[in-house]
Amino acid sequence: MSKEQTQKEMFNRLETYKNVVTSELANTQFPEQPLNLYEPVKYILDLGGKRMRPILSMMACEMFSGEYIKAKDAALGVEIFHNFTLIHDDIMDAAPLRRGKETVHKKWNERVGLLSGDALMVESYKRLANYRPDLLPKILKLYNITAIEVCEGQQMDMDFESRDDVKIEEYINMIRLKTAVLLGCSLQLGAIVGGASEKDAQDLYNFGVNLGIAFQLQDDILDVYADQSKFGKQVGGDIIANKKTFLLLTALETANSDQLQRLRSLFNETNNEKKVEAVKEIYAELRIKDKAEQQMEIYYRTAMENLDAIHVDDVKKEPLRTIANYLLSRES
Amino acid sequence: MSKEQTQKEMFNRLETYKNVVTSELANTQFPEQPLNLYEPVKYILDLGGKRMRPILSMMACEMFSGEYIKAKDAALGVEIFHNFTLIHDDIMDAAPLRRGKETVHKKWNERVGLLSGDALMVESYKRLANYRPDLLPKILKLYNITAIEVCEGQQMDMDFESRDDVKIEEYINMIRLKTAVLLGCSLQLGAIVGGASEKDAQDLYNFGVNLGIAFQLQDDILDVYADQSKFGKQVGGDIIANKKTFLLLTALETANSDQLQRLRSLFNETNNEKKVEAVKEIYAELRIKDKAEQQMEIYYRTAMENLDAIHVDDVKKEPLRTIANYLLSRES
Repeated sequence: MSKEQTQKEMFNRLETYKNVVTSELANTQFPEQPLNLYEPVKYILDLGGKRMRPILSMMACEMFSGEYIKAKDAALGVEIFHNFTLIHDDIMDAAPLRRGKETVHKKWNERVGLLSGDALMVESYKRLANYRPDLLPKILKLYNITAIEVCEGQQMDMDFESRDDVKIEEYINMIRLKTAVLLGCSLQLGAIVGGASEKDAQDLYNFGVNLGIAFQLQDDILDVYADQSKFGKQVGGDIIANKKTFLLLTALETANSDQLQRLRSLFNETNNEKKVEAVKEIYAELRIKDKAEQQMEIYYRTAMENLDAIHVDDVKKEPLRTIANYLLSRES
Repeated sequence: MSKEQTQKEMFNRLETYKNVVTSELANTQFPEQPLNLYEPVKYILDLGGKRMRPILSMMACEMFSGEYIKAKDAALGVEIFHNFTLIHDDIMDAAPLRRGKETVHKKWNERVGLLSGDALMVESYKRLANYRPDLLPKILKLYNITAIEVCEGQQMDMDFESRDDVKIEEYINMIRLKTAVLLGCSLQLGAIVGGASEKDAQDLYNFGVNLGIAFQLQDDILDVYADQSKFGKQVGGDIIANKKTFLLLTALETANSDQLQRLRSLFNETNNEKKVEAVKEIYAELRIKDKAEQQMEIYYRTAMENLDAIHVDDVKKEPLRTIANYLLSRES
């Protein structure tokens, strides 16, 4: 098959998986009452999104067993868990919007957001509990560790806001915990229920974690260098907010004293346009974009090595390889 | 054995169980970092409390298997879950104190409370995941249903604050969900890991739920009629706050139009002493205390019938019977 055909076939497949997730979520029967608990639960689950995590679970399961549908409950579990984190993170970040719509705590209030998030976490465990008893210990162990790590990552992210000595290494660890491990977990759950060996399941987990870190680094790069006509958010938003991204932290660690002074004084610059331009000038002097892209490339390559190491026919790995390439060549 | 000896022996046993819980919690190794996630977790778990739920798990397990220690992880699971609900409920209720100490969100902030509560919920699942694979489906099914019901109960409780048409039946259902089902679950988990039959485990669950409802009704009664010298809180606190307790709801449902008018106008009374006295006068006219005690008695008796129905030697039921009597004869 040509590259275009492969990609087209992959997108059809992803569309199928996504439809399974969307229709399963839409068909889930929640109790009618209390309205203020279940309306927000339905609201967030219906908001949509890429459904990346459940799709990864199904792709993993398909790769090992040829039956993606076996991963249905794992897929729904991770998607529901992800939505729990969205509601609680939005409260902690005081975010007004999520996917272009009001966040749960804005539409209702913080108490409702808090409790409906809690309910979603339990709902995610309900899905996992549907698996065969002999699979449950492995599933729960992985899931519990991941869930705690996601909490740790979110706490670190908040802690970083008020710290001015965050190291690059700490930052990578934070994005690993906050975002990447759930991608790894989604894949590994699919592998477990698809009957993968311990070693293959672990390699696939590592693939997901490394891909997730690469993806987050790309987020940092796009926030500064994306084409505004293709980018959903304001380009330069991270610079304006003095957000401690991989780019800023690398600049802070590699700047000479003159550059450091300029950078620090720009933190208080109120003219946003001027600020973004001036910070980008320093980034250019320090070749920050190159450095970030190199780092991203390292994680991407490691992810590919993890995928290579898995003991299944190479052709069965194509969908995951294709999606990884696709994800990391995005412009928005 | 005399009644006093039985009680003394029971208290020694409870002390043993409580010590197991306390020392297990104290010896649990949490990661050092992030400090703002794990310090609050340790703080709330070290605050103490009666440890009623884990004690019930161990008593149940002892009753069926003679080995209370088998219930250790179930016991720690329900205790950790209970502490998760305390942190989140305290945020929702904007409570400044818990067990005489600052609440987590007061000592740190609401974001920290939110996230450390989430982490505790996951920690509770970690404990349950330690059981044998063949027990996990039953354990998880019960636990997931209970956890969701506790969320439902909390939401109802909050909804009731702004409603003025709450029915007694709805109130009973709210306290059942918010408090009683977790007592039933604690007992049933102990029964499951102690090898009880399905029927016995269910009867023990019902015992716990009915006892829990009786206990909450007693709470409502004590809040109005306790001896202030023995009562930890301000007697009459519920009346002052216009809290929709079993007593107030019963008064509202049984009052004649004159009493109803007096009662409603007292909601705005700012002289607390006068308010408590006047409401108590209406309660006396309507024999509200008797009615509440009768209702409590019904749930207590049903609980005892549930206990009677269980297929173990009567002597093995003594500890649960004794503790039920003890709990419902408290004065504070």
